[in-house]
Formats: sequence, structure tokens, C-alpha cells
Amino acid sequence: MMTVVEKLRALRAAMSQSGVDCVFVPSSDPHMSEYLPDHWRSRAWLSGFTGSAGTLCVAKDSAALWTDGRYFIQAERELAGSGIELMKMAQPKTPTVEQWVSKQLPRKGVLALDGSCTSASKVETLEKACKEKEISIKNQDFVQDLWTQDRPSVPASEAWLMDPARAGMPASDKITALRGKLAEKKADAMLVCRLDSVAWLLNLRANDIRYTPFALAYCLVEPSGVRLFIDGSRVSDEVRGNLQAQGVTLYGYDAVQDYLAANKSKLNLLYDPASTNWSVLQVMQKNEAVSLIPEKDPIQLLKAVKNDTEMECQREAHRRDGVAMVRFERELRRRMESGETWTEMDASDYLLGLRMQQEGCLGASFETIAAYRENAAMMHYSPKTGSCATIQSRGFLLVDSGGQYTHGTTDITRTFAVGPLTDEERDAYTLVLKSHIAVAVFKSGSAGRNIDIIAREPMWRRGLDYRCGTGHGVGFVGLIHEGPQGMSAANDTPFVPGMTVTDEPGLYEEGKFGIRIENELVCVPVTKTEYGDFYGFEVFTYCPIDTRPLIVESLTDEELEWLNEYHALVYRELKGALTEEEAAWLKDACAPVTR
Amino acid sequence: MMTVVEKLRALRAAMSQSGVDCVFVPSSDPHMSEYLPDHWRSRAWLSGFTGSAGTLCVAKDSAALWTDGRYFIQAERELAGSGIELMKMAQPKTPTVEQWVSKQLPRKGVLALDGSCTSASKVETLEKACKEKEISIKNQDFVQDLWTQDRPSVPASEAWLMDPARAGMPASDKITALRGKLAEKKADAMLVCRLDSVAWLLNLRANDIRYTPFALAYCLVEPSGVRLFIDGSRVSDEVRGNLQAQGVTLYGYDAVQDYLAANKSKLNLLYDPASTNWSVLQVMQKNEAVSLIPEKDPIQLLKAVKNDTEMECQREAHRRDGVAMVRFERELRRRMESGETWTEMDASDYLLGLRMQQEGCLGASFETIAAYRENAAMMHYSPKTGSCATIQSRGFLLVDSGGQYTHGTTDITRTFAVGPLTDEERDAYTLVLKSHIAVAVFKSGSAGRNIDIIAREPMWRRGLDYRCGTGHGVGFVGLIHEGPQGMSAANDTPFVPGMTVTDEPGLYEEGKFGIRIENELVCVPVTKTEYGDFYGFEVFTYCPIDTRPLIVESLTDEELEWLNEYHALVYRELKGALTEEEAAWLKDACAPVTR
Repeated sequence: MMTVVEKLRALRAAMSQSGVDCVFVPSSDPHMSEYLPDHWRSRAWLSGFTGSAGTLCVAKDSAALWTDGRYFIQAERELAGSGIELMKMAQPKTPTVEQWVSKQLPRKGVLALDGSCTSASKVETLEKACKEKEISIKNQDFVQDLWTQDRPSVPASEAWLMDPARAGMPASDKITALRGKLAEKKADAMLVCRLDSVAWLLNLRANDIRYTPFALAYCLVEPSGVRLFIDGSRVSDEVRGNLQAQGVTLYGYDAVQDYLAANKSKLNLLYDPASTNWSVLQVMQKNEAVSLIPEKDPIQLLKAVKNDTEMECQREAHRRDGVAMVRFERELRRRMESGETWTEMDASDYLLGLRMQQEGCLGASFETIAAYRENAAMMHYSPKTGSCATIQSRGFLLVDSGGQYTHGTTDITRTFAVGPLTDEERDAYTLVLKSHIAVAVFKSGSAGRNIDIIAREPMWRRGLDYRCGTGHGVGFVGLIHEGPQGMSAANDTPFVPGMTVTDEPGLYEEGKFGIRIENELVCVPVTKTEYGDFYGFEVFTYCPIDTRPLIVESLTDEELEWLNEYHALVYRELKGALTEEEAAWLKDACAPVTR
Repeated sequence: MMTVVEKLRALRAAMSQSGVDCVFVPSSDPHMSEYLPDHWRSRAWLSGFTGSAGTLCVAKDSAALWTDGRYFIQAERELAGSGIELMKMAQPKTPTVEQWVSKQLPRKGVLALDGSCTSASKVETLEKACKEKEISIKNQDFVQDLWTQDRPSVPASEAWLMDPARAGMPASDKITALRGKLAEKKADAMLVCRLDSVAWLLNLRANDIRYTPFALAYCLVEPSGVRLFIDGSRVSDEVRGNLQAQGVTLYGYDAVQDYLAANKSKLNLLYDPASTNWSVLQVMQKNEAVSLIPEKDPIQLLKAVKNDTEMECQREAHRRDGVAMVRFERELRRRMESGETWTEMDASDYLLGLRMQQEGCLGASFETIAAYRENAAMMHYSPKTGSCATIQSRGFLLVDSGGQYTHGTTDITRTFAVGPLTDEERDAYTLVLKSHIAVAVFKSGSAGRNIDIIAREPMWRRGLDYRCGTGHGVGFVGLIHEGPQGMSAANDTPFVPGMTVTDEPGLYEEGKFGIRIENELVCVPVTKTEYGDFYGFEVFTYCPIDTRPLIVESLTDEELEWLNEYHALVYRELKGALTEEEAAWLKDACAPVTR
């Protein structure tokens, strides 16, 4: 095993041989996925930083890694000794990747990147930044020659089709809806690159990427039909037949560039620069029959609005998930009371086991965060066997986890008191609940950037904040982070009924504790008056919120009412799926809180 | 007196003679002022709609007037029978002026407008809209030949200079600050067109426009000096000498176009397309020595951040204003209790009289809104002698008013219970107070569009809303509506300490009531933590809020605390300026409210 320092030394030697001054390594696969097949985790392999989001740049005498607030603490630790400078994104003095590149490289220097794993839009912003110093950008993958040992292969798990009774809409109808959206942009074709978009469009799923049930594939929607580029070895005759019956023809995964190059029919082809890799774009640009129309992927907005069937299935997924969570909390309390030791990893594994016992559970929807006390201050900490903490009977245990089910995707965080708490911890927990509850009714047209502030207000009044959005969209048997909707200061997609989003404010005190309370919500209409349409959110996470840490006197009547109504809902939804003993425990955990 | 129908007939005859298909009449003077010298109130004269904001378009067979939510009810009434269609701005189906013009006019048609009263940026958007149908835009003023009788003359009131002890900064320093801002934009000259910008820059005031203490003038800042274009007959030798001592040379008001045309020195001249009239711009464009740099007027942001002296003066202005308001409320209560009749107009005049008794009061800062019951549902209703309502002993009287003082500018609204109220009225009043209080602490970088929603949230939860921003900036011995800051969904100027803004949510039920509670606030730092700088607002309107209509049980502990602390502040600030009897009354009006 090479160390990070050795890898960087080898990379720089190769760069020098090729006349390259800097290499840009994003966290990306050919489909711009957030979670990557291990085969494409080049940035993690090169830098040693294992968080899900990060960009590495290696120049001759310097190297830097950009990541966001979720990962500052973790990245600092993992990068120690590597010589790679940590760039904390969105901090006032941190340069952007583009600023850094244009400063570090010499005039007429060469920046290399793997075009098959870099989006067209990222290349465009890099090109702009490089213009003044006449820096050129070269499509060259340095990692393939360095990462030869133990590199995981390209995945090709068995593909399957969603049960139509759960998808709520057959692929043929979705293709028709997409063609309508294309016509609005004067396009008659589209290259679908995002795996979640391909999955939604064809009701197609697989297990190529850990936590996300997608198949590596491109889909080309043409006036004459739909082409799916996928490794054929993993597609059963039944699935193939079903797809063909809906007008979908299959080609090999690696055939996409050749097909696009050979195409002779005139196409007004929409592509999404943010999710189309540069190598594929370059092929399309060379084909004179293709008129390219750069636009946002229209499937994203179609997919974000869940249909009634999807919502009903999602509720069922959350009921199953809630049962697992209730059993987990009972075991946690039993162990704390009996003094049995439990490590973060044990707890994490135990919870996954409970989920897997639920019917239709396909696995976790992301890497479980079971973080005890100060570990929870690292927003996306995950315990590792051997190095993780043992849960003691004081402070908080934060557990952020979720499941992929045949019925939907869940994402839930609860922070449990595992023993006595300090006043500071109780105060922070109460404040987090206030922020969690504060997400409320809004007028149609409001986007995340409008609503986000409502959740932050209780914290801002105290000079506190959390360095991330309040919540993100969630897919349906899909991505745990789904766009375009989201509850954050930058998000300008108006919420419409059917859109899901998490509500997960938190407080993180480095070296002390991390507290987060997360439910999954779905946007629903609330009322329509002469002043307009008003929307709100239905909670469809069913799991008690630990009330023991609360400073009840600090809650307003409205907040108490919310809490008690929520707990009544949780009990109503879950009791039927629990044993008598478990139901009795839940009744107690959901008991109304009064002052 | 011609009727509106007769005026439009005469206009159309003139249009036909000139080969013009449509005339565009904005509410504007040569300086793009919001409140206009009567000489330039062409739109009101032509259309009969007297509100402060509105745009009239007259085509051959159709005419339309656009105004915003404040004026829908008033405009509907005033336009009745005129044949002019009311266009309610920002309603989903209302076309914009540009859409209407491009639809109504024939291909290759001619649109005329008075270039000296239309901004360069407005002409630009009209040109864009006219492009497809090849409609041409003609700089022609039709109103001057029609409005010959009783047209008020161009004002030229006596100019005066602010006491340096109150301005906090001499003109020479302000000019230096402006030159710094110009250099940032690579400009060395600027044509200052906005009257409030000229007033701020030179600490110059006059009484040319009702309610706003400005002098009609342009100011040209050049590297070699500063030229002030102003009617010289109104400038005393003392003022002239003082300005000259600071490097300001005076020219006649009407000399501006000739001076700009004759200029021979090379200038990189910044101008603000939104406040520069098209006629002046055309002159500058023809001068080859001038390189034009279109940018926002940089004085606006400089001026918006009040210095410490201005803030201290502003507090004094509010103390004086508060004394007048307290005396007004006492008289109102006395009359209601004794059964003496009072019309809205009487009340309005009485209040102005009280203000004028205060030292340094220059007059009202805008037309007083004294609106009884359903009249208050018209957001900017103003009583007219002869037609206004008599205040009865039931329901609400809304009074929105303000004063111009040598010490500052005030804007305050109180809604008084003048007798028994319905449950609906009490509920609405309580809700308005909740919204008023909700404006709170925010992180630096937050703009009006972020904060506005916090005030609306209590209403949105009930499906209610108000069809205007939550508040606007306020000038210092200046404009009652000052930018660029403001509390509204569209405003993207981050608040910084020193910026003033009103906080005036309301509820308006057509045919029933209008309720508004308005204070003036100034942005102040609250705390600085590891999470950033947090700002909030200091209230500097000192006047009791009628507590009798409140449903006290609906207020949270925090809201009650705010109310009681605010009333303690009001009493503390005003008691010294009141008679013993008045102070005793105020103490009672400011008594803590408890559940």
C-alpha cells in the first residue's frame, strides 16, 4: 500500500513527464454522482480524505483539497501529514479552486483532468479562470496508471425494474412527459447522464453504487426511440423484454461515445452541462448532425415531485424504518441501564441489522453516522471498527441513518441522551428542536433560500448557527441527496406539493458534542385564500424524539403542541407493527410533555 | 377643466397628427424622483389616478395604467369611467408595460415618450420589447401642449445647507468618499441625477418637492471640480460662498445639457441608467470626449449607512415626533370619549399642527393617511376635505404619518381602537403586532429578501399576507422611501449597521378595516461569535402601541416581553418632553401588559 505522500510523489513524476503543471481531481464518476462506485474514488485514494465531497488539486510544489463545512474536522485529521492544504469552502478568505489554479499555475501552464469524470460545466469555469494566464486544459487521466493495484472494478450488479404498483407511472408515460419538457426547450432529443434520472425515467434500478440503487447507464432519448447504454451482462431477458416493449433498445455501456460519434440523424439534443462529462460532450460537439442545447436536466424537476403512489409507498417505508428505530432505541436504553458496553460501530451494525429485518429493505441509504459525544461535532463522522468510541453513560449519542426499501428511501437523525447531560447540552438540544419545529407554512413561490432562515432564526438570536443547509431533497428508492429542491440559503427552486425534503438543523461544538434532529417532510398544500396558495410540510418520519434532554420551560405553547401532536402521530403509525411490549414502551416514549 | 376623457381625446388627436401610435407616461420628473414637483405630475393630470406610483400608456383605441398593490382599490375608483384599464402589477395574469406595448402597437409602429422624464434604463427595456415588431421610440413630450392651463411652474424654493453638527460629515469629505467609489469602477467623473444623492453629497436642502426637502439640481463631479446645476435665483450668497469653498461651482439648472454637450475634457463618466433621463444621456452619448460607464448610483449605498451623528439626530427627531403623536392620541381619546365629531381630515390637520409646534419641524414627510375603518383597507388612502369619513366610536382609525425635521425624517403608523371592536378586528390587530415583533436577529450578509419572510410567517400560517414589502429605507432629512436597502422579497442589499428601515406589516380587509403598526428601525450589531457577525435592529420610533385591541392570550412570552420593554423605552425617551399630566397619561398607555 502506497502512502498519500508516495502517491503524490508518483503523480508529480508522471505530471513532469507529460509536461503537466497541475492535476485537478474531482469527486466524480462519468455520471457526476455524489456517491461514487469505489472504482472512481480517485480523490479519496490520492488524498486520503474519505468524505463524500471534496476536490483535490495537485501542482508541482503545492496541493490543496476543498471540502464543505460538514467535513472540516474530519478532513483536517485525515489530511494531516500529507502536505495537502485544507481549503474550507465558503469561508471568507478561502480561495475557490479556480482562483487557486489560476494563481498556482505559471503563464501558459497546463492543467490536466480526467474528462470522463469532470462535468462540462466544471471545465467551462476552469477554462474561464485559466484564460488570463493562457493556461490550457488537457483531457488526461493520470490516476489509471498510478492506481493499478487493488483498484475496484466497474460495477455491474443485476438490474431490476420497479413494481409498477409502486412507481405510480410506467416508463412510457415518463418518456412522454420528458418529451413534452424537451419540446418546451425546442429539443427533440436528450442525453440523460445522471444515474438517478435514468433510474426514474425507466423505473430501472440496480445495486452498482453503495447506498444508491442505480445502474451505471446512459440513456439517449431520440425522436425515433430510446437507447439505453448499459452493461448487457447484468440485464435479464425479462427486464430487457420489458424495456423493449416500452420502446427502449439496449446497447453496451461503453458504446455510448461510438454511437454518438456515428449518429447521422439531425438532432436538437438537450444536454445538462452539470451532469454531462467533458469527454462525451467533446464527441457530441464533433458531430455536425447534432445541434446541442445546454439546459438543466429536466428530469430532475419531474422526479422531485412525487406522485401520490410514491408518497403512499414512502409513508410505508417510513413505518418500517420507524419500527427499526424504536427497536434500536430500546436496545440502546437497555444497554445503558445494564451497563453493557457498546461501541459506535456495534450500535451502527445493530441498527442496520434491525433495518434488514424489515420487509423490502435493500440496505442502508448512506453510511450510518453513530457518533458519541464530541465525535458528533464532526457532521459526517462515521465510526470505523477498531478506532471508534465506546458509548458511556453520559452525554449524547447522535445517530443519523437511513434505509433503502422497495417502498422508498429514508433518512433520519435522532440524538439520544445516554446518561446525565450538562446544562449546555440540554440548552443546545432544546434550541435544535426549536429550529426543527420552526419550518412552517409558506406562500407558493417560496424557495429554500426563503424558508431556510425561519429554521435558523432561533439560533441566530443566540449568535449560533450550523454550517450547512437546513435540509436536502430525498429520492424515491433513489438518492439520499436529491435536487433541485432543498432547504438552504442558495436554493432558488420553489417548493411545490410532492417535493420531499429533510429538516435537520443542528448544533456542533467542536470537542464537546453534536446534536441534530432530522425528519423527512413532504410539501403539501395547506390553504388557498385570496392572498394566494399556501403550502406546508407533512412529516413522514415516524420515530419518537428523545424528550428527556428538553428544557421544557423554554418551549413555547406552539412548540409543545407540535411535539405532542407529532408523538401522537408516531404512536398511531407504528403501534400496529410492534409487539405489545414494544408498543407499551413507545406509548411511554410518546407521552405528552407538559410544563 | 378638461375631464380625463377629454384629455385623452386631445392627446389622441395630437398623436395622430404626429404619426404616433402610443404614448408612454411614467410617474417621473427629470431626476426620477418618487414624489414629484406638481409641474411634472403629468400621469396624474392625464389619467385622474392620483397615487404616487403608476405608469400610463395611451394607444389609439386602448389605454392602461399600471400600479402596485398599495393602490389597487384607489386606482379602480379613480379610473372608473375613464376608459383606462387598470393593470394590477405583480398579479399572475397582468401583462407588464412592455408586453402590453409590444402587443398593442402595430409592426413598425411609433411609441412616444418624454425623454427628459423617462430613465435611460426604462427606455432600454422598452427598446428590447419593441425590437421584434420593429417599433421605434420617439423622444416627444405631448403633455406640454395639452397641459397649458393651470400647470404648476417648476419650483425654486430657497436652498439651505445642513448644519455640519447634524450632517456629521462635510460635503468635501463626502465628495472624497464618492471619488473613492468612482475609482473602484474606473471612473473619474459622475453625473449625479437623483435629488437625494445631490442633497446628501453637498449637504444641500430646499423645499422644491412637497414632503422631501430637496432642491432641483444636477451635480457633475469631475476630476477638476464639482459643478452644481441649480436655479441660481434661490441660492443665497452665503450658501453659494460655502459651496464654492468646498470646490463646488454653480451653473444654471437648464445649463446641464449645454455644458455636457460642450465638454472637451476626456472623462470616464459614471452614470446611473435608472436615474439618468434619456434626453441627458443622449447628449452625453453624442460627446466623443466622454466614455460612459453605466453603474448603480454609488451615493445611494454611502447615504444609506447613517453615521453616528445622523443616528443621534434621528433619535432626537423621533423624540419630538413621539411627543406630537402622544398629544394626538390624547386628543383622539378625549374626543371619542366626549362624543365630539372629528373627520379624518380634521385629525390629519390636527396631527400636522402638533408636529409643526415641535422645534425644527419642516413639515410632513409624506401625505398623512388618516383612514377610518374600511378606508384603511386602501393602503395609501389619504382623506380629502369634503369627502372624507367622520370618525365614529367603533372600529379602528389608522394613522400613517411622519415629519421632516432639521434633525431627521420620521415615518410612523399607529392603529387606534376608537370604540368597540369585532373579534375579527382584535384577532387581526394581534396578528399584525406579532408580525411587527418578528423582525429579529440575523447573520451578516442577510438582505431584505431573506428577512422579509420572518415577519410574514405568523400571517402565512393563517393563509394571510400583505401585498407590499414589510418595510422600506428612510432618509435623513430626506426621502421617506430610501434605497437600496429594504425589507421585501426582492431586495438583495445586505443590511449593515447604520441602515434604517421601517417595519410595517399590516392586514387589509377590503370593505372592513386596515391595520398597520409601523416603527422605524436602524440596523445595529448584536453579537460576534465563531459563527459570524450577527445584526439586529434598534427601534427609534418612540410612541405607544395601542394595547387595548390585543388578544393578550395569543401573544407568546417573548412577544409580551418585547411589548413591555418597548413601552418602557417609549416612556423613558418621552417623559422629559411632556407636561406632568401628559407624562401620567403616557405612563398609563405604556403600562406593562400581563396575561
